[in-house]
Amino acid sequence: MEGVEALTFDVFGTVVDWHGSVSAELKALGQDLALSGAFLAADWDAFATEWRKGYLTNTSRIAREGSDSGPLNVDILHRQILDDMLSSPRWVHVGSKLDGKTRAHLNLVWHRLNGWPDTVEGLYQLKKHVILTTLSNGNVRLLVDMAKHANLPWDLVLSAELFSCYKPNPEAYLGAIKHLSVPPEKCAMVAAHIYDLRAAAKVGMKTVYVERPGEAPGDITVKPKSEGGEVDCVVQSFVELASLFSQTH
Amino acid sequence: MEGVEALTFDVFGTVVDWHGSVSAELKALGQDLALSGAFLAADWDAFATEWRKGYLTNTSRIAREGSDSGPLNVDILHRQILDDMLSSPRWVHVGSKLDGKTRAHLNLVWHRLNGWPDTVEGLYQLKKHVILTTLSNGNVRLLVDMAKHANLPWDLVLSAELFSCYKPNPEAYLGAIKHLSVPPEKCAMVAAHIYDLRAAAKVGMKTVYVERPGEAPGDITVKPKSEGGEVDCVVQSFVELASLFSQTH
Repeated sequence: MEGVEALTFDVFGTVVDWHGSVSAELKALGQDLALSGAFLAADWDAFATEWRKGYLTNTSRIAREGSDSGPLNVDILHRQILDDMLSSPRWVHVGSKLDGKTRAHLNLVWHRLNGWPDTVEGLYQLKKHVILTTLSNGNVRLLVDMAKHANLPWDLVLSAELFSCYKPNPEAYLGAIKHLSVPPEKCAMVAAHIYDLRAAAKVGMKTVYVERPGEAPGDITVKPKSEGGEVDCVVQSFVELASLFSQTH
Repeated sequence: MEGVEALTFDVFGTVVDWHGSVSAELKALGQDLALSGAFLAADWDAFATEWRKGYLTNTSRIAREGSDSGPLNVDILHRQILDDMLSSPRWVHVGSKLDGKTRAHLNLVWHRLNGWPDTVEGLYQLKKHVILTTLSNGNVRLLVDMAKHANLPWDLVLSAELFSCYKPNPEAYLGAIKHLSVPPEKCAMVAAHIYDLRAAAKVGMKTVYVERPGEAPGDITVKPKSEGGEVDCVVQSFVELASLFSQTH
């Protein structure tokens, strides 16, 4: 990581545990609504997974097809997917119990996600050495609210929304580099998803893969270049990443 | 300030004391260069003022004439003005002593400005109640470096650069509101300059005027609406502003 001045972080899955946070809030909502008889914890896990899948499918489609093909604001996108789910055969009996106000509150659960166990300590350590910025498909307000909720000490909050696209569209990475006023090789993308790192590498950025439970398909092993792989660095946690910076900065 | 969810801050002059910080660094440079015989402290004060005036003249012209009429990155603009000054009759004998490396370092003095005495305490207090964001003509990297240097705990760093304009072009204020996902009346602009607050009010934002030494022409007194003036609120410091929020939030 020598010479790296800024780290750009993917957020959902990399910095925060979306599945744990969303399914916990859904389970609590289910209890409030007295759905516990009809609904098991596993149903809410499936609900969270389906919601996230809708997000991934839509953002990757819009990243490919352009900004006219869907909303560039993730709050709006999450709400569309939520409403579609709640009127689908599997979830319609849940949907019938959720009024507009409850849906609006539930939709903002993505603003209330918690970090992985190492996230906060790692970010505070890293902040002493380099500029820390988000580079997420999440909209700006979502990322700001999440930072206040989960104590994430960003120096800068960048969203692909600011560049009118979604990752992995190259404009997102190029926009970050431009506004950081940094040559691409002095900026490293940190993510738990190889597609994000591949897109960052294409514009010349360095790449850090962090292993997170449930974020990589089971048969993928990402290796560093020193072991014949394709990323610059593989870490298990942000604290481990910080230790690399404290050695070289 | 009831109902206000976010504060957007002008930075140069409002959050940081540009004149004190820049002239102090210039005076130290003058001593390093053994210019102390030919140069008095007053000359360096004048140098700082002329540099700043070039910035104001150029950003307001580009705000009016559009993004093709000059650089939208303040680091580039500051360097152009600096080089012009250092080849002008008044300062050419200083310029002859400053090589490219020294000029590049000096040009980044705007990344190393210090807050007013109340700035850091006030911002930390305000951060408990509302979202704090810059809305400056300074480029993103400048604002990030300044925040790390001066301990400014922004939740978000917004620059007019992100919206391809300079204040007081309305696109800057509209861009901030859009990305904060907030109705304009729930967002207040904080500035020591009335032209900035007038532009914010035109798009529906609330306005907070903070009095800062040297930032208002001598004959201007800004009053709150409650006293027949044009802004929502007048304060002497960020700590005073924070006390208003602790009463209503």
